[in-house]
Amino acid sequence: MANNKQKRFLLTEDEIPTHWYNIQADMVNKPMPPLNPATKEPLKPEDLYPIFSEELSRQELNMTDAWIEIPEEVREYYKYYRSTPLVRAYGLEKALGTPAHIYFKNESVSPIGSHKINSALAQAYYCKKEGVTNITTETGAGQWGAALSYAAKVFGLEAAVYQVKISYEQKPYRRSIMQTFGAQVTPSPSMSTRAGKDILTKTPNHQGSLGTAISEAIELARTTPNCKYTLGSVLSHVTLHQTVIGLEAEKQMAMAGEYPDIVIGCFGGGSNFGGIAFPFMRHNILEGKKTRFIAAEPASCPKLTKGKFMYDFGDEAGYTPLLPMFSLGHKFAPANIHAGGLRYHGAGVIVSQLLKDNLMEAVDIKQLDTFKAGCLFAQSEGIIPAPESCHAIAATINEALKCKESGEEKVILFNLSGHGLIDMASYDQYLAGNLVNYELSDEEITQSIEKN
Amino acid sequence: MANNKQKRFLLTEDEIPTHWYNIQADMVNKPMPPLNPATKEPLKPEDLYPIFSEELSRQELNMTDAWIEIPEEVREYYKYYRSTPLVRAYGLEKALGTPAHIYFKNESVSPIGSHKINSALAQAYYCKKEGVTNITTETGAGQWGAALSYAAKVFGLEAAVYQVKISYEQKPYRRSIMQTFGAQVTPSPSMSTRAGKDILTKTPNHQGSLGTAISEAIELARTTPNCKYTLGSVLSHVTLHQTVIGLEAEKQMAMAGEYPDIVIGCFGGGSNFGGIAFPFMRHNILEGKKTRFIAAEPASCPKLTKGKFMYDFGDEAGYTPLLPMFSLGHKFAPANIHAGGLRYHGAGVIVSQLLKDNLMEAVDIKQLDTFKAGCLFAQSEGIIPAPESCHAIAATINEALKCKESGEEKVILFNLSGHGLIDMASYDQYLAGNLVNYELSDEEITQSIEKN
Repeated sequence: MANNKQKRFLLTEDEIPTHWYNIQADMVNKPMPPLNPATKEPLKPEDLYPIFSEELSRQELNMTDAWIEIPEEVREYYKYYRSTPLVRAYGLEKALGTPAHIYFKNESVSPIGSHKINSALAQAYYCKKEGVTNITTETGAGQWGAALSYAAKVFGLEAAVYQVKISYEQKPYRRSIMQTFGAQVTPSPSMSTRAGKDILTKTPNHQGSLGTAISEAIELARTTPNCKYTLGSVLSHVTLHQTVIGLEAEKQMAMAGEYPDIVIGCFGGGSNFGGIAFPFMRHNILEGKKTRFIAAEPASCPKLTKGKFMYDFGDEAGYTPLLPMFSLGHKFAPANIHAGGLRYHGAGVIVSQLLKDNLMEAVDIKQLDTFKAGCLFAQSEGIIPAPESCHAIAATINEALKCKESGEEKVILFNLSGHGLIDMASYDQYLAGNLVNYELSDEEITQSIEKN
Repeated sequence: MANNKQKRFLLTEDEIPTHWYNIQADMVNKPMPPLNPATKEPLKPEDLYPIFSEELSRQELNMTDAWIEIPEEVREYYKYYRSTPLVRAYGLEKALGTPAHIYFKNESVSPIGSHKINSALAQAYYCKKEGVTNITTETGAGQWGAALSYAAKVFGLEAAVYQVKISYEQKPYRRSIMQTFGAQVTPSPSMSTRAGKDILTKTPNHQGSLGTAISEAIELARTTPNCKYTLGSVLSHVTLHQTVIGLEAEKQMAMAGEYPDIVIGCFGGGSNFGGIAFPFMRHNILEGKKTRFIAAEPASCPKLTKGKFMYDFGDEAGYTPLLPMFSLGHKFAPANIHAGGLRYHGAGVIVSQLLKDNLMEAVDIKQLDTFKAGCLFAQSEGIIPAPESCHAIAATINEALKCKESGEEKVILFNLSGHGLIDMASYDQYLAGNLVNYELSDEEITQSIEKN
């Protein structure tokens, strides 16, 4: 196994992928179809046109084309920051004393500081191309909202963002970032939509959730001319765009002369996990490779490890199609953990099917363990990771420590989905000893699912 | 002039510079010598040993070696993030409608988010090598303190940082970053040193300045066994380490098939400016090239444009040697601008000599113009720049708009010294219309200088 001690691996502009990888085409068991909630009929792309760009709607349900071309205009913007570096984490390996080879894909050096920009540029581009003038979305911690705000500016669109209220308050500077890019930002739930009003009258001082913010953004798109809704994760087309991460990593791992035994991503709706995992999973499906894929989710929001596979809404108000997914129920109110981007009740339909078919694994991580992992990573690699990314780091550390016990030189690759520089208030709380773990009892989970 | 529309230019690990460039060796008029304040004798390296690492002391006064080897151990750490990208700012060019070709060196993607890490790693390394266990320093906005905290961790040293109080309060999350890296952070002026006590008893509620924080850090180093002081700018050895920026940029500009007509850096103590400028200035000195070099300083702290060339102390308490430099007087109390890293009364001795000899220029920029420039850059390039870097961007925009008027296709290169993600409170204030310009009258400047 070659190891020339090179630390970073980068691609030239002409090596940046020209196509995204659509794993749906290669899956033996396809995801079950989303259903129209009124008719219970399988969804057709046309059913999504009122809310989404038409091209994105077609990508969402495309079960046949494994490779979808990245539009020239989007690739031109990718070139400003891609490839992102693949980095060998020698510092972390040394700190752990593990024989494992740890690599991370550093999406934190994108202009807006996370992987979210990869799909934001694509979604804004398709909307612009189809004559849309206004786009709307929801955001949790604000990584997605910041990415969409910048992408909207790039393509000359107006952006309106509903930010989950608890994150709006915990991380005020992500709001400032969105505003610096020129977006309108509203804390959710708000009184500006029926969905928001319903929730606020039923539950005053509701702290918000991604499910609620999605309802508000969809309602705004439905009731505003020439306005489309965009989503930062969960949906299959978002994950499709994020496969640029894994496709680059594949080439970069080859430059390092290695191939991953384990691929790890944190898990909110599935897009950064799928983005790094699916291009490698392709080789498991088509060539029988045996790489393990681990999704790392918060113990306080354990849809993959403790949720139920069922048809459920993607949002709190029930505006979305019914999605076949692992879910905690769309009325689930997640605890106020600092990884705002992972506070979502369901998993994407692709990942849900893959998990059902044992093509991947999931682990849940407690909040204190995520920050402990984040601090160790910061001290050994110099990068302060987003609280979301800390879940992937914690899972990586667990696997690397198993290697230390067994003496195995496994190759572990994880996605550093974003930096945590806007999350320093959370680190502050952690360092001051003010953070706690939130775990759900089986009863609480059952109750939440039964509320459906 | 080749322009293949490539956006980013990166070097491979083996193209990263192996030597720093010491412009002092090539200067026809050498900087005047620093003086021992007691004897008024020119300083010898040995005079600095009680405070600084011995190797750094020798580098400081080295007038003969143009190339100084970067230690292997430092280069190994450089490889984790260097080369930083050279980026063609097509977005900004388009927004301005200028025929100028604008390039920026993106130091914001270093692990700690700015160029400061380049010297922090070197300084921590030399201290470690010489058996030092504790290092201390001052920091303004916190970019340097964050870099030194991480570098100390890398080489197994304890770090104590005095942060200028106004920045400690304006930017609490840089403190958190330093603490996450394991450093001790104290707001300055503090009651922990004689220098701090003197200032606080004379001026209660003093907001602090870099000059004051330097006094405190030097005092700590002097009174603590096995502890050395380190500095983030001003001194010649710091600028030396930063030349890795310009040396890379030289190769990267060649990849782009261009050579800069104008090189611009923001100016606090001179290290990021000198870092990007000196490797190109070398060709002016040795080969008669005609590149212009512009240092962009705050209108509220105009030592280059309105200060006086004189022997002055580097700190408020008068602990440092007397330095021959453009200065506003070491008792100068800068206004509370948000570019905390530029609130320093003096300029480095090299830059001061170069300015005297008309080998470079200086411009001053008003606070509101810097944020206006920063927002335009953010919206056109997706990166939110540090308030310090906004000074370089504003100067770049001024030059690019002159090109628009004249129709000249000049090549402009500036250093994006860091991102502004920890400075979002400042952007917030700007967007809310709460910021003002601070300008000094000639009387105020004269008074400050005469206080000396």
